[in-house]
Amino acid sequence: MPNKGMFITFEGGEGCGKTTVIKALKEKIKKEGIPLHVTREPGGSAIAEQIRNIILDRSNTLMDPRTEALLYAASRRQHLAEIVLPLLKEGKFVLSDRYLDSSLAYQGYARGIGIDAVYSINEFAIDDTMPDLTFFLDLKPEEGLRRIAEHRSDEVNRLDLEKLSFHEKVYEAYQILLKKYPERIVRIDASQTVEEEVQQIKKIILDKYAEKQKN
Amino acid sequence: MPNKGMFITFEGGEGCGKTTVIKALKEKIKKEGIPLHVTREPGGSAIAEQIRNIILDRSNTLMDPRTEALLYAASRRQHLAEIVLPLLKEGKFVLSDRYLDSSLAYQGYARGIGIDAVYSINEFAIDDTMPDLTFFLDLKPEEGLRRIAEHRSDEVNRLDLEKLSFHEKVYEAYQILLKKYPERIVRIDASQTVEEEVQQIKKIILDKYAEKQKN
Repeated sequence: MPNKGMFITFEGGEGCGKTTVIKALKEKIKKEGIPLHVTREPGGSAIAEQIRNIILDRSNTLMDPRTEALLYAASRRQHLAEIVLPLLKEGKFVLSDRYLDSSLAYQGYARGIGIDAVYSINEFAIDDTMPDLTFFLDLKPEEGLRRIAEHRSDEVNRLDLEKLSFHEKVYEAYQILLKKYPERIVRIDASQTVEEEVQQIKKIILDKYAEKQKN
Repeated sequence: MPNKGMFITFEGGEGCGKTTVIKALKEKIKKEGIPLHVTREPGGSAIAEQIRNIILDRSNTLMDPRTEALLYAASRRQHLAEIVLPLLKEGKFVLSDRYLDSSLAYQGYARGIGIDAVYSINEFAIDDTMPDLTFFLDLKPEEGLRRIAEHRSDEVNRLDLEKLSFHEKVYEAYQILLKKYPERIVRIDASQTVEEEVQQIKKIILDKYAEKQKN
């Protein structure tokens, strides 16, 4: 690995609390004196945000599932090339709200294209840049959707509008990915308090970092 | 092949005259009583046009070559799903200004990503829909650029701004593709008059159509 930094991604269904957890975690890790950058997918750079706008536009109801998968891969590539890779090369920690696994779960499994087919276009997009660690914030879909209904009714996007059955498939997909990538993906119980989640995640990151520095 | 129609694509470098030829050809073929639809890539549907706008926007100078390749594939997929496939199923002739081969030539070869790598993401996008016929309008790059400078200086896009060496690589790539797909791609001398080109192309299309109806 030529990268001195650490690339850490956060995954989970809608309403699982990724954004809140990442924000709290950012403060904790900064206190350790570790240089870090928080980003998100889809988006994170000007061109990637333009792609994000097409994906999430609620009027784009005719979007084909394979188009959606290719747009996510395009956005991912741009975000990686413009933001993530330069930061990792500088030795920074990069925390990303979603990455590869979201496409495998949402487009590959829940939309029915197939995890392997979606992996193939993402292989082209990421060109070997796998995360050092991925946290799956595990929350049952109905609970996630309940949280969204409570807190975010003002900014509901095209994906939030999917039926419960879609979000249940996404949840199933993450269980498959946990088995497929046991070394990389760590399950975090997202029914805990944010404080509890953050403590747990922080410890795992710092342990992994110490281990990585030895190698 | 479940499609009753014919899918015909037009390829070539900048300024080779595809648009003019397709327009003239459309009139000729309509006179034969054949139902036909002319379209173009990237674009051709509302969502695909949104993607086209990102690709061709001159201010998007930071676009990574792989992002560009994925956006073309996304636009292609949407155009295919929304426009081309339904028309082919109705038995129409679909004439498309650019398709798969443009990505193989521009992104795969001229940008240096590799023809095979770019083919792999397009395989995902087109899902077995190869053209029945492809016409390569063969014109030397310097002549194409001269025509552009003469006629279209008001609407120069991001790709027109590439250096001559880029367009020469695109030309080389099409020579490789002609060898790779000799059954499908037909070379047309684009230094002829439009009338001559159109007569030649029309004959090839009608012969192929007669042959297809026998099978």
